[in-house]
Amino acid sequence: MHAYFTEEGSVEAVNARMGQNVSPRLATVMASLVKHLHAFAKEVELTQAEWDYGIDFLTRTGQICSGERQEFILLSDTLGLSMLVDAINNRRPTGATENTVFGPFHVEDAPIREHGATISLDGKGESCLFEGRVTDLDGQPIEGATVDVWSDNADGFYDVQQPGIQPKWNNRGRFVTGPDGRYSFVGIKPVSYPIPDDGPVGQMLGHLGRHPYRPAHMHYLVTAPGFQKIVTHTFVGEDPYLESDTVFGVKQTLVAPFEHISGATEWRSPFDFVMVPDATEDHRLADSIEHAAS
Amino acid sequence: MHAYFTEEGSVEAVNARMGQNVSPRLATVMASLVKHLHAFAKEVELTQAEWDYGIDFLTRTGQICSGERQEFILLSDTLGLSMLVDAINNRRPTGATENTVFGPFHVEDAPIREHGATISLDGKGESCLFEGRVTDLDGQPIEGATVDVWSDNADGFYDVQQPGIQPKWNNRGRFVTGPDGRYSFVGIKPVSYPIPDDGPVGQMLGHLGRHPYRPAHMHYLVTAPGFQKIVTHTFVGEDPYLESDTVFGVKQTLVAPFEHISGATEWRSPFDFVMVPDATEDHRLADSIEHAAS
Repeated sequence: MHAYFTEEGSVEAVNARMGQNVSPRLATVMASLVKHLHAFAKEVELTQAEWDYGIDFLTRTGQICSGERQEFILLSDTLGLSMLVDAINNRRPTGATENTVFGPFHVEDAPIREHGATISLDGKGESCLFEGRVTDLDGQPIEGATVDVWSDNADGFYDVQQPGIQPKWNNRGRFVTGPDGRYSFVGIKPVSYPIPDDGPVGQMLGHLGRHPYRPAHMHYLVTAPGFQKIVTHTFVGEDPYLESDTVFGVKQTLVAPFEHISGATEWRSPFDFVMVPDATEDHRLADSIEHAAS
Repeated sequence: MHAYFTEEGSVEAVNARMGQNVSPRLATVMASLVKHLHAFAKEVELTQAEWDYGIDFLTRTGQICSGERQEFILLSDTLGLSMLVDAINNRRPTGATENTVFGPFHVEDAPIREHGATISLDGKGESCLFEGRVTDLDGQPIEGATVDVWSDNADGFYDVQQPGIQPKWNNRGRFVTGPDGRYSFVGIKPVSYPIPDDGPVGQMLGHLGRHPYRPAHMHYLVTAPGFQKIVTHTFVGEDPYLESDTVFGVKQTLVAPFEHISGATEWRSPFDFVMVPDATEDHRLADSIEHAAS
Protein backbone atom coordinates (compact mmCIF):
# COMPACT_ATOMS: atom_id res chain seq x y z
CA MET A 1 0.00 0.00 0.00
CA HIS A 2 1.16 3.48 -0.82
CA ALA A 3 2.17 5.66 2.12
CA TYR A 4 -0.43 8.43 2.05
CA PHE A 5 -0.06 11.51 4.23
CA THR A 6 -0.45 10.95 7.97
CA GLU A 7 0.13 13.25 10.93
CA GLU A 8 2.99 11.06 12.16
CA GLY A 9 4.58 10.53 8.75
CA SER A 10 3.98 14.02 7.39
CA VAL A 11 7.65 14.93 6.80
CA GLU A 12 8.44 11.68 5.01
CA ALA A 13 5.30 11.96 2.85
CA VAL A 14 6.28 15.43 1.63
CA ASN A 15 9.99 14.82 1.15
CA ALA A 16 9.45 11.50 -0.64
CA ARG A 17 7.65 13.45 -3.34
CA MET A 18 10.82 15.13 -4.68
CA GLY A 19 11.86 14.05 -8.16
CA GLN A 20 15.06 12.37 -9.26
CA ASN A 21 16.83 15.23 -11.00
CA VAL A 22 16.63 17.84 -8.27
CA SER A 23 19.77 19.83 -7.39
CA PRO A 24 21.30 17.98 -4.41
CA ARG A 25 21.71 21.21 -2.45
CA LEU A 26 18.11 22.29 -3.14
CA ALA A 27 16.91 18.84 -2.03
CA THR A 28 18.92 19.14 1.20
CA VAL A 29 17.63 22.65 1.97
CA MET A 30 13.98 21.84 1.22
CA ALA A 31 13.99 18.55 3.13
CA SER A 32 15.36 20.34 6.19
CA LEU A 33 12.88 23.21 5.80
CA VAL A 34 9.92 20.81 5.66
CA LYS A 35 11.25 18.85 8.64
CA HIS A 36 11.60 21.92 10.84
CA LEU A 37 8.38 23.58 9.62
CA HIS A 38 6.37 20.46 10.50
CA ALA A 39 8.22 20.05 13.83
CA PHE A 40 7.15 23.59 14.72
CA ALA A 41 3.48 22.95 13.86
CA LYS A 42 3.51 19.69 15.81
CA GLU A 43 5.29 21.09 18.86
CA VAL A 44 2.78 23.90 19.37
CA GLU A 45 -0.18 21.97 17.90
CA LEU A 46 -0.88 24.94 15.65
CA THR A 47 -4.60 25.69 15.49
CA GLN A 48 -6.50 26.45 12.30
CA ALA A 49 -7.04 30.04 13.50
CA GLU A 50 -3.31 30.48 14.11
CA TRP A 51 -2.55 29.09 10.65
CA ASP A 52 -5.09 31.56 9.18
CA TYR A 53 -3.39 34.38 11.06
CA GLY A 54 0.04 33.27 9.83
CA ILE A 55 -1.09 33.16 6.19
CA ASP A 56 -2.55 36.64 6.54
CA PHE A 57 0.59 37.95 8.29
CA LEU A 58 2.89 36.65 5.55
CA THR A 59 0.60 38.05 2.87
CA ARG A 60 0.57 41.51 4.46
CA THR A 61 4.36 41.30 4.88
CA GLY A 62 4.74 40.62 1.16
CA GLN A 63 2.28 43.24 0.06
CA ILE A 64 3.92 46.14 1.95
CA CYS A 65 7.24 45.43 0.18
CA SER A 66 8.31 47.97 -2.45
CA GLY A 67 11.48 49.31 -3.99
CA GLU A 68 12.15 51.25 -0.77
CA ARG A 69 10.69 48.83 1.79
CA GLN A 70 11.71 45.20 2.40
CA GLU A 71 9.49 43.89 5.18
CA PHE A 72 10.69 40.27 4.88
CA ILE A 73 14.25 41.43 5.62
CA LEU A 74 12.91 43.30 8.66
CA LEU A 75 11.14 40.09 9.71
CA SER A 76 14.34 38.08 9.28
CA ASP A 77 16.30 40.76 11.17
CA THR A 78 13.92 40.93 14.13
CA LEU A 79 13.73 37.13 14.46
CA GLY A 80 17.54 36.94 14.59
CA LEU A 81 17.75 35.00 11.33
CA SER A 82 19.80 37.64 9.48
CA MET A 83 22.44 37.71 12.23
CA LEU A 84 22.48 33.91 12.36
CA VAL A 85 23.09 33.58 8.61
CA ASP A 86 25.79 36.25 8.88
CA ALA A 87 27.42 34.36 11.77
CA ILE A 88 27.31 30.98 9.99
CA ASN A 89 28.95 32.45 6.90
CA ASN A 90 31.59 34.56 8.63
CA ARG A 91 33.21 32.38 11.28
CA ARG A 92 36.62 33.86 12.11
CA PRO A 93 39.46 33.08 14.48
CA THR A 94 39.69 34.88 17.82
CA GLY A 95 41.25 38.29 17.39
CA ALA A 96 39.77 38.91 13.95
CA THR A 97 37.12 41.62 13.67
CA GLU A 98 33.61 40.14 13.84
CA ASN A 99 30.91 40.74 11.25
CA THR A 100 27.45 42.08 11.85
CA VAL A 101 24.42 42.80 9.63
CA PHE A 102 24.96 44.84 6.48
CA GLY A 103 21.72 46.82 6.70
CA PRO A 104 19.81 48.39 3.79
CA PHE A 105 21.53 51.81 3.69
CA HIS A 106 24.92 51.16 2.08
CA VAL A 107 25.54 53.02 -1.19
CA GLU A 108 28.28 51.96 -3.58
CA ASP A 109 30.98 54.30 -4.85
CA ALA A 110 30.95 56.79 -1.99
CA PRO A 111 33.58 59.55 -2.43
CA ILE A 112 37.15 58.59 -1.63
CA ARG A 113 38.34 61.17 0.91
CA GLU A 114 41.65 62.20 2.47
CA HIS A 115 42.49 60.83 5.89
CA GLY A 116 41.11 63.09 8.58
CA ALA A 117 38.40 64.50 6.30
CA THR A 118 34.93 65.28 7.59
CA ILE A 119 32.08 63.11 6.30
CA SER A 120 29.32 65.02 8.10
CA LEU A 121 28.15 67.64 5.61
CA ASP A 122 25.00 69.00 7.26
CA GLY A 123 26.60 70.62 10.31
CA LYS A 124 24.45 68.65 12.72
CA GLY A 125 25.48 66.50 15.66
CA GLU A 126 28.45 66.10 17.98
CA SER A 127 31.66 65.70 15.98
CA CYS A 128 33.72 62.59 16.54
CA LEU A 129 37.14 61.49 15.32
CA PHE A 130 37.10 57.85 14.17
CA GLU A 131 40.57 56.39 13.76
CA GLY A 132 42.59 53.20 13.92
CA ARG A 133 44.53 50.67 11.91
CA VAL A 134 43.74 47.85 9.51
CA THR A 135 46.01 44.88 10.21
CA ASP A 136 46.31 41.16 9.67
CA LEU A 137 46.08 38.64 12.51
CA ASP A 138 49.78 39.20 13.33
CA GLY A 139 49.25 42.93 13.78
CA GLN A 140 51.00 43.80 10.52
CA PRO A 141 49.46 46.84 8.79
CA ILE A 142 47.54 46.21 5.56
CA GLU A 143 48.26 48.77 2.85
CA GLY A 144 45.62 49.54 0.24
CA ALA A 145 42.65 48.48 2.37
CA THR A 146 39.45 50.40 1.64
CA VAL A 147 37.46 51.51 4.69
CA ASP A 148 33.94 52.38 3.47
CA VAL A 149 31.91 54.11 6.22
CA TRP A 150 28.34 55.33 6.62
CA SER A 151 26.04 56.43 9.43
CA ASP A 152 22.78 58.24 10.09
CA ASN A 153 22.81 61.97 10.81
CA ALA A 154 21.99 63.56 14.17
CA ASP A 155 18.25 63.27 13.38
CA GLY A 156 18.54 59.49 12.99
CA PHE A 157 18.20 59.33 9.18
CA TYR A 158 20.58 58.23 6.44
CA ASP A 159 21.03 60.60 3.51
CA VAL A 160 19.20 58.18 1.18
CA GLN A 161 16.14 58.40 3.43
CA GLN A 162 16.05 62.19 3.04
CA PRO A 163 16.98 63.07 -0.54
CA GLY A 164 16.75 66.83 -1.02
CA ILE A 165 16.90 67.38 2.74
CA GLN A 166 20.37 66.03 3.50
CA PRO A 167 23.37 66.79 1.27
CA LYS A 168 24.30 63.92 -1.06
CA TRP A 169 26.95 61.65 0.51
CA ASN A 170 26.25 63.10 3.96
CA ASN A 171 27.99 60.91 6.55
CA ARG A 172 29.57 58.66 3.93
CA GLY A 173 33.06 58.21 2.58
CA ARG A 174 35.80 55.80 1.61
CA PHE A 175 39.35 55.89 2.99
CA VAL A 176 42.29 53.94 1.59
CA THR A 177 45.08 52.92 3.95
CA GLY A 178 48.75 53.68 3.31
CA PRO A 179 51.77 51.60 4.39
CA ASP A 180 50.96 52.21 8.10
CA GLY A 181 47.46 50.71 7.69
CA ARG A 182 45.93 53.80 9.32
CA TYR A 183 42.54 55.37 8.64
CA SER A 184 40.91 58.42 10.23
CA PHE A 185 37.89 60.60 9.57
CA VAL A 186 35.62 63.02 11.38
CA GLY A 187 31.97 62.08 11.53
CA ILE A 188 29.34 62.53 14.22
CA LYS A 189 28.55 60.51 17.28
CA PRO A 190 25.73 58.48 15.67
CA VAL A 191 22.28 58.29 17.26
CA SER A 192 19.88 55.42 17.85
CA TYR A 193 16.84 55.09 15.55
CA PRO A 194 13.84 52.79 15.02
CA ILE A 195 13.53 50.41 12.09
CA PRO A 196 10.36 51.08 10.04
CA ASP A 197 7.63 49.88 12.41
CA ASP A 198 4.36 50.90 10.74
CA GLY A 199 3.86 47.48 9.10
CA PRO A 200 3.31 43.84 10.11
CA VAL A 201 6.79 43.55 11.67
CA GLY A 202 6.19 46.61 13.84
CA GLN A 203 2.89 45.06 14.95
CA MET A 204 4.70 41.82 15.77
CA LEU A 205 7.28 43.66 17.87
CA GLY A 206 4.44 45.41 19.71
CA HIS A 207 2.67 42.14 20.53
CA LEU A 208 5.99 40.67 21.71
CA GLY A 209 6.64 43.61 24.04
CA ARG A 210 9.70 44.68 22.05
CA HIS A 211 10.80 48.16 20.89
CA PRO A 212 11.92 48.80 17.28
CA TYR A 213 15.21 50.63 18.09
CA ARG A 214 18.76 50.04 16.99
CA PRO A 215 21.54 51.39 19.22
CA ALA A 216 23.71 54.12 17.67
CA HIS A 217 26.37 52.72 15.35
CA MET A 218 28.86 53.55 12.59
CA HIS A 219 28.82 51.19 9.59
CA TYR A 220 32.03 49.81 8.10
CA LEU A 221 32.77 47.76 4.99
CA VAL A 222 36.49 46.97 5.00
CA THR A 223 38.03 45.30 1.95
CA ALA A 224 41.60 44.48 0.94
CA PRO A 225 43.00 42.22 -1.78
CA GLY A 226 43.66 38.72 -0.41
CA PHE A 227 41.56 39.21 2.73
CA GLN A 228 37.96 38.40 3.66
CA LYS A 229 35.79 41.49 3.55
CA ILE A 230 34.52 42.73 6.91
CA VAL A 231 30.92 43.96 7.11
CA THR A 232 30.39 45.42 10.55
CA HIS A 233 29.48 48.34 12.81
CA THR A 234 31.01 49.92 15.87
CA PHE A 235 28.61 50.85 18.66
CA VAL A 236 28.50 53.76 21.10
CA GLY A 237 29.18 52.15 24.47
CA GLU A 238 26.63 53.99 26.60
CA ASP A 239 23.64 53.70 24.24
CA PRO A 240 20.42 52.75 26.09
CA TYR A 241 19.53 50.21 23.37
CA LEU A 242 22.92 48.49 23.35
CA GLU A 243 21.57 45.40 25.11
CA SER A 244 18.29 45.29 23.19
CA ASP A 245 19.16 46.02 19.55
CA THR A 246 15.96 45.03 17.75
CA VAL A 247 17.98 43.24 15.03
CA PHE A 248 20.47 41.61 17.46
CA GLY A 249 23.47 43.22 15.70
CA VAL A 250 25.57 43.98 18.78
CA LYS A 251 28.65 41.90 19.65
CA GLN A 252 30.83 42.60 22.65
CA THR A 253 33.94 43.11 20.50
CA LEU A 254 32.17 45.76 18.41
CA VAL A 255 31.39 48.09 21.31
CA ALA A 256 33.98 50.79 20.69
CA PRO A 257 35.29 53.41 23.12
CA PHE A 258 33.84 56.90 22.75
CA GLU A 259 36.11 59.30 24.58
CA HIS A 260 35.33 62.96 25.24
CA ILE A 261 38.21 65.11 24.01
CA SER A 262 38.86 68.83 24.07
CA GLY A 263 39.03 70.94 20.93
CA ALA A 264 36.84 71.52 17.91
CA THR A 265 36.16 67.79 17.71
CA GLU A 266 34.25 66.64 20.80
CA TRP A 267 34.67 62.87 20.74
CA ARG A 268 37.20 60.27 19.69
CA SER A 269 36.44 56.62 18.89
CA PRO A 270 39.47 54.44 18.20
CA PHE A 271 38.95 51.03 16.58
CA ASP A 272 41.34 48.63 14.81
CA PHE A 273 40.18 46.22 12.11
CA VAL A 274 41.85 42.80 11.98
CA MET A 275 41.42 40.92 8.71
CA VAL A 276 41.85 37.24 7.91
CA PRO A 277 43.11 35.82 4.60
CA ASP A 278 40.49 35.11 1.98
CA ALA A 279 39.40 31.47 2.17
CA THR A 280 38.39 29.41 -0.81
CA GLU A 281 34.99 30.67 -1.79
CA ASP A 282 32.06 28.51 -0.81
CA HIS A 283 30.32 27.23 -3.93
CA ARG A 284 27.77 25.07 -2.11
CA LEU A 285 24.78 26.91 -3.40
CA ALA A 286 25.99 28.35 -6.67
CA ASP A 287 24.55 25.33 -8.46
CA SER A 288 21.14 25.22 -6.86
CA ILE A 289 20.59 28.96 -7.10
CA GLU A 290 21.44 28.92 -10.78
CA HIS A 291 19.18 25.93 -11.15
CA ALA A 292 16.35 27.60 -9.25
CA ALA A 293 16.68 30.85 -11.16
CA SER A 294 16.61 29.17 -14.55
CA MET B 1 28.17 40.82 31.08
CA HIS B 2 25.08 40.89 28.96
CA ALA B 3 24.51 37.88 26.70
CA TYR B 4 24.80 39.37 23.21
CA PHE B 5 23.83 37.38 20.13
CA THR B 6 26.10 34.45 19.27
CA GLU B 7 25.75 31.69 16.70
CA GLU B 8 25.49 29.07 19.45
CA GLY B 9 23.10 31.05 21.65
CA SER B 10 21.01 32.57 18.86
CA VAL B 11 17.66 31.11 19.92
CA GLU B 12 18.05 32.12 23.55
CA ALA B 13 19.15 35.64 22.58
CA VAL B 14 16.03 36.19 20.49
CA ASN B 15 13.52 34.57 22.80
CA ALA B 16 14.91 36.30 25.89
CA ARG B 17 13.90 39.59 24.28
CA MET B 18 10.15 39.02 24.72
CA GLY B 19 8.44 41.36 27.16
CA GLN B 20 6.60 40.49 30.35
CA ASN B 21 3.00 41.04 29.28
CA VAL B 22 2.96 38.91 26.16
CA SER B 23 0.04 36.51 25.63
CA PRO B 24 1.30 33.14 26.94
CA ARG B 25 0.13 31.33 23.82
CA LEU B 26 1.78 33.88 21.52
CA ALA B 27 5.01 33.54 23.52
CA THR B 28 4.87 29.73 23.16
CA VAL B 29 4.23 29.86 19.41
CA MET B 30 6.91 32.46 18.69
CA ALA B 31 9.55 30.80 20.87
CA SER B 32 8.98 27.52 19.02
CA LEU B 33 9.00 29.25 15.64
CA VAL B 34 12.35 30.93 16.37
CA LYS B 35 13.80 27.67 17.67
CA HIS B 36 12.88 25.69 14.58
CA LEU B 37 13.71 28.49 12.12
CA HIS B 38 17.22 28.78 13.58
CA ALA B 39 17.62 24.99 13.72
CA PHE B 40 16.86 24.88 9.99
CA ALA B 41 19.42 27.59 9.15
CA LYS B 42 22.05 25.87 11.31
CA GLU B 43 21.39 22.38 9.98
CA VAL B 44 21.87 23.35 6.34
CA GLU B 45 24.36 26.16 7.09
CA LEU B 46 22.24 28.48 4.99
CA THR B 47 24.40 30.66 2.73
CA GLN B 48 23.91 34.37 2.21
CA ALA B 49 22.89 33.71 -1.41
CA GLU B 50 20.26 31.18 -0.28
CA TRP B 51 18.94 33.66 2.28
CA ASP B 52 18.72 36.31 -0.48
CA TYR B 53 16.84 33.85 -2.67
CA GLY B 54 14.45 33.00 0.18
CA ILE B 55 13.69 36.67 0.88
CA ASP B 56 12.97 37.22 -2.80
CA PHE B 57 10.82 34.05 -3.03
CA LEU B 58 8.66 35.09 -0.06
CA THR B 59 8.33 38.62 -1.44
CA ARG B 60 7.18 37.36 -4.84
CA THR B 61 4.79 34.95 -3.11
CA GLY B 62 3.21 37.85 -1.21
CA GLN B 63 3.04 40.14 -4.19
CA ILE B 64 1.14 37.72 -6.45
CA CYS B 65 -1.61 37.39 -3.84
CA SER B 66 -4.93 39.06 -4.68
CA GLY B 67 -8.60 38.64 -3.90
CA GLU B 68 -8.70 35.61 -6.23
CA ARG B 69 -5.21 34.21 -5.63
CA GLN B 70 -3.66 33.10 -2.31
CA GLU B 71 -0.12 31.95 -3.07
CA PHE B 72 0.88 31.49 0.61
CA ILE B 73 -1.96 28.95 0.99
CA LEU B 74 -0.67 27.17 -2.10
CA LEU B 75 2.81 27.18 -0.53
CA SER B 76 1.45 25.77 2.73
CA ASP B 77 -0.56 23.18 0.78
CA THR B 78 2.35 21.99 -1.34
CA LEU B 79 4.70 21.75 1.68
CA GLY B 80 2.16 19.56 3.49
CA LEU B 81 1.60 22.15 6.22
CA SER B 82 -2.11 22.64 5.49
CA MET B 83 -2.79 18.90 5.76
CA LEU B 84 -0.69 18.71 8.94
CA VAL B 85 -2.63 21.52 10.65
CA ASP B 86 -5.88 19.88 9.53
CA ALA B 87 -4.73 16.54 10.95
CA ILE B 88 -3.61 18.03 14.28
CA ASN B 89 -6.94 19.76 14.75
CA ASN B 90 -9.19 16.91 13.62
CA ARG B 91 -7.97 13.76 15.36
CA ARG B 92 -10.82 11.25 15.41
CA PRO B 93 -11.36 7.70 16.62
CA THR B 94 -11.00 4.80 14.20
CA GLY B 95 -14.15 4.36 12.15
CA ALA B 96 -14.97 8.06 12.03
CA THR B 97 -14.69 9.78 8.64
CA GLU B 98 -11.34 11.50 8.26
CA ASN B 99 -10.91 15.16 7.33
CA THR B 100 -8.91 16.56 4.46
CA VAL B 101 -8.15 20.08 3.18
CA PHE B 102 -11.07 22.47 2.65
CA GLY B 103 -9.73 24.07 -0.51
CA PRO B 104 -10.56 27.55 -1.82
CA PHE B 105 -13.67 26.75 -3.88
CA HIS B 106 -16.45 26.25 -1.33
CA VAL B 107 -19.39 28.69 -1.61
CA GLU B 108 -21.83 29.18 1.24
CA ASP B 109 -25.58 28.79 0.88
CA ALA B 110 -25.63 26.46 -2.11
CA PRO B 111 -29.19 25.43 -3.11
CA ILE B 112 -30.83 22.80 -0.92
CA ARG B 113 -31.92 20.08 -3.32
CA GLU B 114 -34.14 16.98 -3.16
CA HIS B 115 -32.46 13.61 -2.68
CA GLY B 116 -31.51 12.13 -6.03
CA ALA B 117 -31.37 15.56 -7.75
CA THR B 118 -28.74 16.36 -10.34
CA ILE B 119 -26.13 18.97 -9.42
CA SER B 120 -24.40 18.97 -12.83
CA LEU B 121 -26.12 21.73 -14.78
CA ASP B 122 -23.91 22.06 -17.85
CA GLY B 123 -24.55 18.66 -19.39
CA LYS B 124 -20.86 17.80 -19.46
CA GLY B 125 -19.10 14.74 -18.08
CA GLU B 126 -19.93 11.17 -17.14
CA SER B 127 -22.88 11.12 -14.73
CA CYS B 128 -22.39 9.48 -11.37
CA LEU B 129 -24.76 8.64 -8.52
CA PHE B 130 -23.27 9.56 -5.13
CA GLU B 131 -25.12 8.00 -2.22
CA GLY B 132 -24.75 6.74 1.31
CA ARG B 133 -25.66 7.33 4.93
CA VAL B 134 -24.64 9.75 7.67
CA THR B 135 -24.32 7.89 10.96
CA ASP B 136 -22.76 8.13 14.39
CA LEU B 137 -19.95 5.84 15.54
CA ASP B 138 -22.50 3.15 16.49
CA GLY B 139 -23.95 3.11 12.98
CA GLN B 140 -27.14 4.91 14.04
CA PRO B 141 -28.48 7.24 11.31
CA ILE B 142 -28.23 10.98 11.96
CA GLU B 143 -31.35 12.89 10.96
CA GLY B 144 -31.06 16.54 9.92
CA ALA B 145 -27.44 16.34 8.81
CA THR B 146 -26.55 18.71 5.98
CA VAL B 147 -24.35 17.25 3.22
CA ASP B 148 -22.89 20.18 1.29
CA VAL B 149 -21.14 19.01 -1.91
CA TRP B 150 -19.10 20.64 -4.68
CA SER B 151 -16.81 19.54 -7.49
CA ASP B 152 -15.19 20.79 -10.67
CA ASN B 153 -16.91 20.21 -14.01
CA ALA B 154 -15.69 17.86 -16.73
CA ASP B 155 -13.23 20.55 -17.94
CA GLY B 156 -11.55 20.68 -14.51
CA PHE B 157 -12.94 24.05 -13.38
CA TYR B 158 -15.26 25.03 -10.54
CA ASP B 159 -18.20 27.28 -11.43
CA VAL B 160 -16.64 30.20 -9.54
CA GLN B 161 -13.57 29.98 -11.76
CA GLN B 162 -15.74 30.40 -14.87
CA PRO B 163 -18.51 32.89 -14.10
CA GLY B 164 -20.60 33.46 -17.22
CA ILE B 165 -19.31 30.24 -18.77
CA GLN B 166 -20.69 27.70 -16.30
CA PRO B 167 -24.23 27.96 -14.90
CA LYS B 168 -24.37 29.38 -11.37
CA TRP B 169 -24.31 26.59 -8.73
CA ASN B 170 -23.06 24.09 -11.32
CA ASN B 171 -21.90 20.96 -9.50
CA ARG B 172 -22.99 22.27 -6.09
CA GLY B 173 -25.83 21.50 -3.73
CA ARG B 174 -26.90 20.79 -0.17
CA PHE B 175 -28.83 17.70 0.92
CA VAL B 176 -30.50 17.26 4.31
CA THR B 177 -30.87 13.75 5.71
CA GLY B 178 -34.16 12.31 6.92
CA PRO B 179 -34.68 9.72 9.70
CA ASP B 180 -32.78 7.07 7.70
CA GLY B 181 -29.66 9.30 7.49
CA ARG B 182 -29.53 8.79 3.72
CA TYR B 183 -28.29 11.22 1.07
CA SER B 184 -28.06 10.81 -2.70
CA PHE B 185 -27.41 13.03 -5.70
CA VAL B 186 -26.29 12.78 -9.29
CA GLY B 187 -23.12 14.62 -10.19
CA ILE B 188 -20.31 13.83 -12.58
CA LYS B 189 -17.26 11.65 -12.19
CA PRO B 190 -14.88 14.52 -11.25
CA VAL B 191 -11.62 15.07 -13.12
CA SER B 192 -8.09 15.86 -11.97
CA TYR B 193 -6.80 19.43 -12.36
CA PRO B 194 -3.66 21.47 -11.61
CA ILE B 195 -3.44 24.07 -8.84
CA PRO B 196 -2.48 27.52 -10.19
CA ASP B 197 1.17 26.98 -11.15
CA ASP B 198 2.19 30.17 -12.95
CA GLY B 199 3.67 31.78 -9.81
CA PRO B 200 6.50 31.16 -7.31
CA VAL B 201 4.89 27.96 -5.96
CA GLY B 202 4.63 26.52 -9.47
CA GLN B 203 8.31 27.35 -10.01
CA MET B 204 9.16 25.63 -6.73
CA LEU B 205 7.26 22.51 -7.75
CA GLY B 206 9.14 22.53 -11.06
CA HIS B 207 12.55 22.76 -9.36
CA LEU B 208 11.51 19.93 -7.01
CA GLY B 209 10.50 17.70 -9.91
CA ARG B 210 6.85 17.69 -8.82
CA HIS B 211 3.66 18.12 -10.88
CA PRO B 212 0.89 20.55 -9.82
CA TYR B 213 -2.07 18.11 -10.12
CA ARG B 214 -4.76 17.09 -7.69
CA PRO B 215 -6.46 13.73 -8.27
CA ALA B 216 -10.18 13.88 -9.10
CA HIS B 217 -12.35 14.35 -6.02
CA MET B 218 -15.81 15.32 -4.77
CA HIS B 219 -15.85 17.84 -1.88
CA TYR B 220 -18.04 17.32 1.18
CA LEU B 221 -18.85 19.50 4.17
CA VAL B 222 -21.05 17.46 6.51
CA THR B 223 -22.61 19.16 9.53
CA ALA B 224 -25.15 18.07 12.12
CA PRO B 225 -26.16 19.55 15.49
CA GLY B 226 -24.10 18.01 18.31
CA PHE B 227 -21.47 16.52 15.98
CA GLN B 228 -18.05 17.67 14.77
CA LYS B 229 -18.25 18.98 11.23
CA ILE B 230 -16.50 16.87 8.60
CA VAL B 231 -14.52 18.67 5.89
CA THR B 232 -13.40 16.09 3.38
CA HIS B 233 -13.31 14.74 -0.17
CA THR B 234 -13.89 11.36 -1.74
CA PHE B 235 -11.43 10.34 -4.46
CA VAL B 236 -11.81 8.41 -7.69
CA GLY B 237 -9.91 5.20 -7.06
CA GLU B 238 -8.16 4.81 -10.42
CA ASP B 239 -6.97 8.41 -10.79
CA PRO B 240 -3.34 8.60 -12.02
CA TYR B 241 -2.52 11.32 -9.44
CA LEU B 242 -4.01 9.48 -6.48
CA GLU B 243 -0.59 8.68 -5.03
CA SER B 244 0.93 12.07 -5.83
CA ASP B 245 -1.72 14.67 -4.93
CA THR B 246 0.29 17.90 -4.98
CA VAL B 247 -1.37 19.07 -1.73
CA PHE B 248 -1.17 15.63 0.00
CA GLY B 249 -4.96 15.52 0.54
CA VAL B 250 -5.50 11.80 -0.09
CA LYS B 251 -6.15 9.36 2.76
CA GLN B 252 -6.72 5.67 2.24
CA THR B 253 -10.17 5.79 3.88
CA LEU B 254 -11.31 8.53 1.49
CA VAL B 255 -10.71 6.56 -1.69
CA ALA B 256 -14.31 5.71 -2.61
CA PRO B 257 -15.54 2.99 -4.96
CA PHE B 258 -16.58 4.13 -8.44
CA GLU B 259 -18.67 1.38 -9.97
CA HIS B 260 -19.80 1.29 -13.59
CA ILE B 261 -23.58 0.79 -13.72
CA SER B 262 -26.05 0.43 -16.55
CA GLY B 263 -28.73 3.00 -17.27
CA ALA B 264 -28.85 6.73 -17.84
CA THR B 265 -26.40 7.24 -14.98
CA GLU B 266 -23.05 5.66 -15.83
CA TRP B 267 -21.32 5.43 -12.46
CA ARG B 268 -22.16 4.91 -8.80
CA SER B 269 -20.01 5.95 -5.86
CA PRO B 270 -21.27 4.85 -2.44
CA PHE B 271 -19.78 6.46 0.68
CA ASP B 272 -20.96 6.62 4.29
CA PHE B 273 -20.06 9.48 6.64
CA VAL B 274 -19.44 8.63 10.30
CA MET B 275 -19.59 11.60 12.67
CA VAL B 276 -18.25 11.99 16.21
CA PRO B 277 -19.87 14.06 18.95
CA ASP B 278 -18.83 17.68 19.17
CA ALA B 279 -15.98 18.07 21.66
CA THR B 280 -15.50 21.11 23.84
CA GLU B 281 -14.18 23.76 21.53
CA ASP B 282 -10.50 24.52 21.76
CA HIS B 283 -9.98 28.06 23.00
CA ARG B 284 -6.18 27.85 23.16
CA LEU B 285 -5.60 30.57 20.65
CA ALA B 286 -8.70 32.71 20.92
CA ASP B 287 -6.88 34.95 23.39
CA SER B 288 -3.67 35.44 21.50
CA ILE B 289 -5.38 35.98 18.15
CA GLU B 290 -7.63 38.61 19.67
CA HIS B 291 -4.58 40.11 21.30
CA ALA B 292 -2.64 40.08 18.04
CA ALA B 293 -5.51 41.54 16.03
CA SER B 294 -6.13 44.40 18.44
